[in-house]
Amino acid sequence: MEPCDLLVIHASELCTLAGGPRTGAALGRIGIVADGGVAIAGDRIAAVGPSPGLLARYRPRRVLDAANCLVTPGFVDAHTHPVFAATREAEFEMRVQGRTYQEIAAAGGGIRSSVRAVRAASEDDLVASTRRRLDLFLAHGTTTVEAKSGYGLSLADETKSLRAIQKAAAGHPVRVVPTFLGAHEFPDEYRDRREDYVRLLCDEMIPAVARDRLAVYADVFCEKGVFEVPESRRVLEAARDHGLRLRLHADEFVDSGAAALAAELRADSADHLMAVSDRGIDALGSAGTAAVLLPGTSFFLALSRFAPARRLVDAGLTVALGTDFNPGSNMTCSMPMILTIACLYLKLTPAEALTAATINAARSLRLESEVGSLEAGKRADLVIFDAPNHRFLPYHYGVNLVRAVVAAGRVVVDDRVRTASNPGSPSSESREP
Amino acid sequence: MEPCDLLVIHASELCTLAGGPRTGAALGRIGIVADGGVAIAGDRIAAVGPSPGLLARYRPRRVLDAANCLVTPGFVDAHTHPVFAATREAEFEMRVQGRTYQEIAAAGGGIRSSVRAVRAASEDDLVASTRRRLDLFLAHGTTTVEAKSGYGLSLADETKSLRAIQKAAAGHPVRVVPTFLGAHEFPDEYRDRREDYVRLLCDEMIPAVARDRLAVYADVFCEKGVFEVPESRRVLEAARDHGLRLRLHADEFVDSGAAALAAELRADSADHLMAVSDRGIDALGSAGTAAVLLPGTSFFLALSRFAPARRLVDAGLTVALGTDFNPGSNMTCSMPMILTIACLYLKLTPAEALTAATINAARSLRLESEVGSLEAGKRADLVIFDAPNHRFLPYHYGVNLVRAVVAAGRVVVDDRVRTASNPGSPSSESREP
Repeated sequence: MEPCDLLVIHASELCTLAGGPRTGAALGRIGIVADGGVAIAGDRIAAVGPSPGLLARYRPRRVLDAANCLVTPGFVDAHTHPVFAATREAEFEMRVQGRTYQEIAAAGGGIRSSVRAVRAASEDDLVASTRRRLDLFLAHGTTTVEAKSGYGLSLADETKSLRAIQKAAAGHPVRVVPTFLGAHEFPDEYRDRREDYVRLLCDEMIPAVARDRLAVYADVFCEKGVFEVPESRRVLEAARDHGLRLRLHADEFVDSGAAALAAELRADSADHLMAVSDRGIDALGSAGTAAVLLPGTSFFLALSRFAPARRLVDAGLTVALGTDFNPGSNMTCSMPMILTIACLYLKLTPAEALTAATINAARSLRLESEVGSLEAGKRADLVIFDAPNHRFLPYHYGVNLVRAVVAAGRVVVDDRVRTASNPGSPSSESREP
Repeated sequence: MEPCDLLVIHASELCTLAGGPRTGAALGRIGIVADGGVAIAGDRIAAVGPSPGLLARYRPRRVLDAANCLVTPGFVDAHTHPVFAATREAEFEMRVQGRTYQEIAAAGGGIRSSVRAVRAASEDDLVASTRRRLDLFLAHGTTTVEAKSGYGLSLADETKSLRAIQKAAAGHPVRVVPTFLGAHEFPDEYRDRREDYVRLLCDEMIPAVARDRLAVYADVFCEKGVFEVPESRRVLEAARDHGLRLRLHADEFVDSGAAALAAELRADSADHLMAVSDRGIDALGSAGTAAVLLPGTSFFLALSRFAPARRLVDAGLTVALGTDFNPGSNMTCSMPMILTIACLYLKLTPAEALTAATINAARSLRLESEVGSLEAGKRADLVIFDAPNHRFLPYHYGVNLVRAVVAAGRVVVDDRVRTASNPGSPSSESREP
């Protein structure tokens, strides 16, 4: 008998997602093991397979019984904006009353209102609120999060935001991949001198971010009226020249040729893609750029348009999912909620959606050899759901089915104690006066 | 100083919903009190108002500090189907792959598959699963639930289902209003003799249900291909003659004149109404029949059609909301999730949606003097949310913002202990082997 630290056993269905990212007809092959289990040593997976074999082989220090439960890899959220200082529920009401997201932005709301709030916030406050949001991600089964800056839009406020991500992530169970998104919008003070802001991005902000190792990725909101394709190209090339990897907000509302730009620059991901053209799809396919779809945003903006997921799958792209968690266009950090929306409105099957939210999302972050599947040697990130099978996960929606989360080998969320999922919650204090 | 048992204080926003059901332009008037509180004596509300006044007046045995939190009445869910024995996630996948709900039903799935499972289930099993579902409702802030039978479709199995509701509700914090829905579908054995089933409903099942006081309401799935209007009328008239109050599944997929029938029979509610005609709306208005809207079902069936909520509001109807929780066409018991969908797709404001899910839903159950608002003398049902205001509730979706629930004066859900919200959860057992 070999020793191990933790043995998860008796999952009614365990989805390994082993074998690397999937495309095309293989997208829905999720590696189902009945009565499955995972043996964990330290922060790594030692073995995955049927429970009887694991029980015969390992002498664990601790056992998590997953009977009647689904076990999956921890979710990988490929696109989030978690560093903000104020929520924007008033804009939610304005949209319900008929104003569009673009109209609200033009009136000084939207991203620019978040910029004002972040600039006014202290770094410590941003660290605290970002950390609470990481707790929420974790409570809903996400163990790896791509996290963008982008509500600072000045050298000081973008680096403050990226430091807040770094500090919030330090020692946190969620693995965080930071992305510099100084090109999220033109700040008010540069509205009439766009060229100056592009130069600030390329000549000052990107070099500073790269020098201080504040980000792994750079991203640009490439969209008509925001960063046009030529501006986006300059920013991305500067980022690449400084050693940052590339992602791109591409063709969200109109087809501006952003997907082709992402492909041309060999970006790791092109995100949103609601309006992508066939030519853009072809280019992404040739470049090996992952398509990160964010259907929660279409839902939250009450749009009838969703990304053409099936065409992207059929074109052989690596299709991934993200929440797009942000205070304006999608206020949720629940990946199970995104799975439901992806099934209903992108017409991904539950298995395809699970692949997109785990190993394929990991691929979009170049972390496919580290996270996103349950395989020996990988980081021991997994979720135990109160669900008999993977179809149940998007099916039973609006409730949190997570029963336990293991991150880097540690049990960090447990239904019965709720350590990480209900951080603090000082508000429901009960006391004798 | 007067004694009281429980004092909830310092809500950043307390919505009383006082003053009775609302219609038209008043729908969104939710009675906001800043720094609000509620004094509770026994199972009743003693007083509602600003915290300083309550603190000066009452000497409470226990205090719940709701600082930085939203406090609302407990939700009233006006339409649910919680008594079933098997979930139907395989059908969810079939729908994603392009089959319609109607096609799945025609192939032996849908309601009929639930009927087979309920008939095979023991009453004890139904009691246990229904009770777990009531726990879930409660965990998401719902303290009153209308609960339908309708997956038995025989005298024995319908009464078994209604007894299961009764037993599950006994001693449970959620107040349950049982509805007999034997006319949910024609069972397989009566498929070629519909007249015989209508007679069984009218002559045997309804009298038995009324005699044993197993239901307050009777309901019929009045829809083309299910119960036609003349059949529905006969069933509803028989129910009325036996002292049952009336609700009606009306004009969900096509306009069959069901709304007019509900109005003609002075039903307390007409539900769904996605396809309701202007004539139907006028009739409901004249009759005082509440319109119970179920937008989660449109979402879960990925339909582009939602009920014409604004027209119903403008026509002066009492617009209410329900989850329609059921294993086929809407697998959620989260009213906050329904609020989000109602705002985004029915274009109700957050305040209007809150009214519809509380006092107006209570009105549709003739319980408006007992629940649905925070007013002295009413049942002390309230929810404390981790939200700064009521707009935040539909805005931050896919997560459970409930911090505490008080039902009939008792603190039955508390974030820190999670008594009722995580019933049992034997599945995430952790032990030393």
